[in-house]
Amino acid sequence: MNLWLRKLKTEVPFTLKTPAEVARFELENNLPGFCFELCEQPGMGDTYRIESRGTGSYILTGGSTGLLYGAYRLIEDHLTGGSTCAPVSSAPKYSLRMINCWDNADGGIERGYAGRSLFFRNGRLDYSRDRIRTLARLLASAGLNVLCINNVNVHDPAQLLLEDYLPDLAALADLFRPFGVRLMVSVDFSQPMRHGVSTADPLDPAVRAWWKETAARVYAAVPDLAGFLVKADSEGRPGPFTYGRNHADGANMLAEALSPFGGMVVWRCFVYNCRQDWRDTKTDRPKAAWEHYAFLDGKFADNVILQVKHGPFDFQVREPLSPLLLGMKKTKLAMELQLAQEYTGHQIDLYTMIPMWKELYEELPADNIMSLAAVSNLGDDENYTGHPLAAVNLYTYGLLAWDPETDAEEAVTRWCRLTYDFTTEQEQTLVSLLLSSRRTYEKYTAPLGIGWMITPHDHYGPNPSGYEYDLWGTYHKANRNAVGIDRTHAGTGYLDQYPDEIRAKYEDPAVCPDLLLLFYHRLPYDFIMRDGRTLIQRIYDDHFEGLAETRTMAEKLLVLPFPEPDASVIRDRMNRQLYNAREWCDIINTFFHRLSGIPDARGRIIYD
Amino acid sequence: MNLWLRKLKTEVPFTLKTPAEVARFELENNLPGFCFELCEQPGMGDTYRIESRGTGSYILTGGSTGLLYGAYRLIEDHLTGGSTCAPVSSAPKYSLRMINCWDNADGGIERGYAGRSLFFRNGRLDYSRDRIRTLARLLASAGLNVLCINNVNVHDPAQLLLEDYLPDLAALADLFRPFGVRLMVSVDFSQPMRHGVSTADPLDPAVRAWWKETAARVYAAVPDLAGFLVKADSEGRPGPFTYGRNHADGANMLAEALSPFGGMVVWRCFVYNCRQDWRDTKTDRPKAAWEHYAFLDGKFADNVILQVKHGPFDFQVREPLSPLLLGMKKTKLAMELQLAQEYTGHQIDLYTMIPMWKELYEELPADNIMSLAAVSNLGDDENYTGHPLAAVNLYTYGLLAWDPETDAEEAVTRWCRLTYDFTTEQEQTLVSLLLSSRRTYEKYTAPLGIGWMITPHDHYGPNPSGYEYDLWGTYHKANRNAVGIDRTHAGTGYLDQYPDEIRAKYEDPAVCPDLLLLFYHRLPYDFIMRDGRTLIQRIYDDHFEGLAETRTMAEKLLVLPFPEPDASVIRDRMNRQLYNAREWCDIINTFFHRLSGIPDARGRIIYD
Repeated sequence: MNLWLRKLKTEVPFTLKTPAEVARFELENNLPGFCFELCEQPGMGDTYRIESRGTGSYILTGGSTGLLYGAYRLIEDHLTGGSTCAPVSSAPKYSLRMINCWDNADGGIERGYAGRSLFFRNGRLDYSRDRIRTLARLLASAGLNVLCINNVNVHDPAQLLLEDYLPDLAALADLFRPFGVRLMVSVDFSQPMRHGVSTADPLDPAVRAWWKETAARVYAAVPDLAGFLVKADSEGRPGPFTYGRNHADGANMLAEALSPFGGMVVWRCFVYNCRQDWRDTKTDRPKAAWEHYAFLDGKFADNVILQVKHGPFDFQVREPLSPLLLGMKKTKLAMELQLAQEYTGHQIDLYTMIPMWKELYEELPADNIMSLAAVSNLGDDENYTGHPLAAVNLYTYGLLAWDPETDAEEAVTRWCRLTYDFTTEQEQTLVSLLLSSRRTYEKYTAPLGIGWMITPHDHYGPNPSGYEYDLWGTYHKANRNAVGIDRTHAGTGYLDQYPDEIRAKYEDPAVCPDLLLLFYHRLPYDFIMRDGRTLIQRIYDDHFEGLAETRTMAEKLLVLPFPEPDASVIRDRMNRQLYNAREWCDIINTFFHRLSGIPDARGRIIYD
Repeated sequence: MNLWLRKLKTEVPFTLKTPAEVARFELENNLPGFCFELCEQPGMGDTYRIESRGTGSYILTGGSTGLLYGAYRLIEDHLTGGSTCAPVSSAPKYSLRMINCWDNADGGIERGYAGRSLFFRNGRLDYSRDRIRTLARLLASAGLNVLCINNVNVHDPAQLLLEDYLPDLAALADLFRPFGVRLMVSVDFSQPMRHGVSTADPLDPAVRAWWKETAARVYAAVPDLAGFLVKADSEGRPGPFTYGRNHADGANMLAEALSPFGGMVVWRCFVYNCRQDWRDTKTDRPKAAWEHYAFLDGKFADNVILQVKHGPFDFQVREPLSPLLLGMKKTKLAMELQLAQEYTGHQIDLYTMIPMWKELYEELPADNIMSLAAVSNLGDDENYTGHPLAAVNLYTYGLLAWDPETDAEEAVTRWCRLTYDFTTEQEQTLVSLLLSSRRTYEKYTAPLGIGWMITPHDHYGPNPSGYEYDLWGTYHKANRNAVGIDRTHAGTGYLDQYPDEIRAKYEDPAVCPDLLLLFYHRLPYDFIMRDGRTLIQRIYDDHFEGLAETRTMAEKLLVLPFPEPDASVIRDRMNRQLYNAREWCDIINTFFHRLSGIPDARGRIIYD
């Protein structure tokens, strides 16, 4: 199962050592009737240029990785039925196009919905070389070039990647290197304390010395390691706060250690109080990242990247853009997306993400960030992503990270055409279902940006009050009259973290976009929306629509001629989605009906 | 740590083989200044008679076990500062006084709150002989005589107790036998299918033959095994329904196999639809047991006992008496209690059960049942019951099973006096706290008999709607106007399963006892209770009272001079209970306030 590369011929031999060699092999084996000249120009890096020398003959110029990306461009163009319109030049928008795996050393994957780890088993790096090679090829063909292999929550013994397992890490890096993919590792901020250092204080000389020595050792084994990924002071992880230091102190200390080797520190900004008292109405979790990081703008070393989740909460179906992504102009930023469908259907429900990512870019200037990262949706299931159609998210993420101006429909169509042999009509059906799938899921789940009405911990299926009295700061406070949190200046003040033009867009419920209305405002059920419906009627309507759309989706999807084993998996998961959508629709409607007492204006059944 | 036997001298040697021998040893070692004559009369069984021959000299007459119970009676009377008022005769009300352990072969305990299994480790019977001996002594001293060692959910490889592990079972039985405790095992109804029989149909000759042969083999190894405990067709367990047979067919088939050996089939009646659709308002889970069993009254073999949970749900803080316990006059019945504090505070919160058991007997004629069973609260924690004060439930359960007319206060005082060396005042304080602890817990948890507002699966801490949209049939359907399920004739008809005098007591909300009001009735928040308060005000008041009582309890409890290690454990758990009680109080009040919009009449804080 090679996903969107299933039509490629043969495997790339393990004997090839450089991306340029792989590029030549792929072209010769997959475009056999064509003629190529490959000109490697090291300074061009990932960039490539394709020129035509007449029918079926191309000159491909680029760095070693550029040649590889150009080769896949040519092959994919060919497989999708077009011919490459040479001359074409292409350079990636972001030099680091990252995947974060949340794989644990025991082989489990935090928030993994596609089986067990591809890298780890029983506490060690232990993998199938064939599957790693296929994964590397998939990543390269999608233009992705950095892979962090272990969970940001570094559970013992994953810390051994920097220690006893370093030779194994080097061997794994060797498998990815011919595909232009560099490894990254998540590190535990307190790791020096496992080695006789009495503190992890970033300003302590012994700590700094330990990290420098460790970096030297690690880079001796893996000279092209992309760097360290760090989750500090977050959800119980150790970090600089323990020592009264701020996160610039922490990140810069690691940056100093990695700097001689060209390594980056990717520092996650997912810091909030995860022991909040639900009675506390002053604390508003979405404000947390800004409060912890904005004042440090400009204080980070050159080789530090702050990795910021796209929204201020945690990968809900709909969130506003994180204010940090707009406000930290003097800091290198990466935006973090999540391919793993943690809150978005567990790779059971259909949920294609690129329409959502494109919406983020409507408010985010592409130059505000210098990198994208995405939490992996991969595992050792035969099809790598659990749901065969979830692969579209990995592939289109790659296209987006190369070029944020990628068109969503074109990207999805390209994936579809690479993956299946459908007629035009069938292809249009599938593309249309994929493109609308996120909006459908959004309709039947938590309404209008409110989020979190999901089964606690597990995060699949509805539970309208599941987080309401918990410690996570994720409350909607629905009562018999109203629902939502006022996050405007008059409320928690979260909206004040934004530039004026954004504030103006959301501050007034009369103009605030519907789909974020309950994220920003607390409103009575009889609030009149711009289209004349009441808030409660809009909630009911969305949920009935979401369920109806899911049923229509199932009808259309299940007649498409997917090959096996895809067909069986898709059928099974679609049936589970149908059950899930009905539960969501009825439970959310009943929840609000019990509170409001207001019947559906169209007389549809809402259960008591 | 010998709990209430901590003041006894030395351990009983492993060399003693009969209860009479143990009786003599215990008397000689623990009442050294006294003089005893022991007259064993086998026909007297558990019954004993104590006669005085002048100061410090007694004649003790009884069966072998009777002598043992008489010996503990004398020793305990002495330790608690009284002298036995001979002559006294005592016979147990119920011949089978049973403990059900829900221990799994892997060493875990389902709903266990006191550590790991005392019997199993790593898939095998593997135990400390010393701890088993102590446990046996504790059970005997409380008058308990049947111990089922494995979970009613028979998870692989616990079924091997009837097979490869039979010699180990026999060895364990040898340890309990000198204390008059007979073992019982939970069996898997489908067990023949592990042995080449193609079905588990109770009417199939091959199945009947397999069980007969198995019974012969088991009783050859453990001749005094009390019998088999069976959970069939319940929460996913196999059973007769698979084959279109009823539970008399299933139980009688096993009874036939055990009959030659004097073994009993204890057949649990915990059958209900655990895949209920929350939208379904016709199905009412409390009706299930009656519907599955009542029509079979008189159809069970002589050596079958139906084991019926005391209430129609599942060990909630307050439930009505199960109608089966009143209606099956031609069937042998055991009432099942639960010492394990599954829904009642996890052996963190103080919860003394005997006041609740006494309430059950207010409606249950003691002759309606022929046995009591209780789910164990034991584990391998140093103190056996997790919370040192939870031992009172095991001890007083034993007294109740011997004599249901046992006075609650006397029983608790006796346990307290055996366990600690307190002044009269301290003892009164502790006894009073223990006796009121259940009512306090009841006040701060789900109101007025409604139950189930608890964290799903885990069953500790509040979650007002945690089960509301789930598959378990446990709904309160609270909305902005009203709460509760109408279970009267006009509602689901559950109450129709009772005799007339019971129906009359509960049918009308104007006379229905307050504490079961919301079990039987759906009522608006402004319903006026008999004391003039509204329903909602009563809910608020109870919760504030429950929290206040817990705080007072903590103040009183934590100044008592408990010895270590009890003191530390009690202090830690009391602090956790304080947190828990506050969460319950505030969350339940907020939940109802959000729904009803009605403020507390006394102006206390209810959080938004």
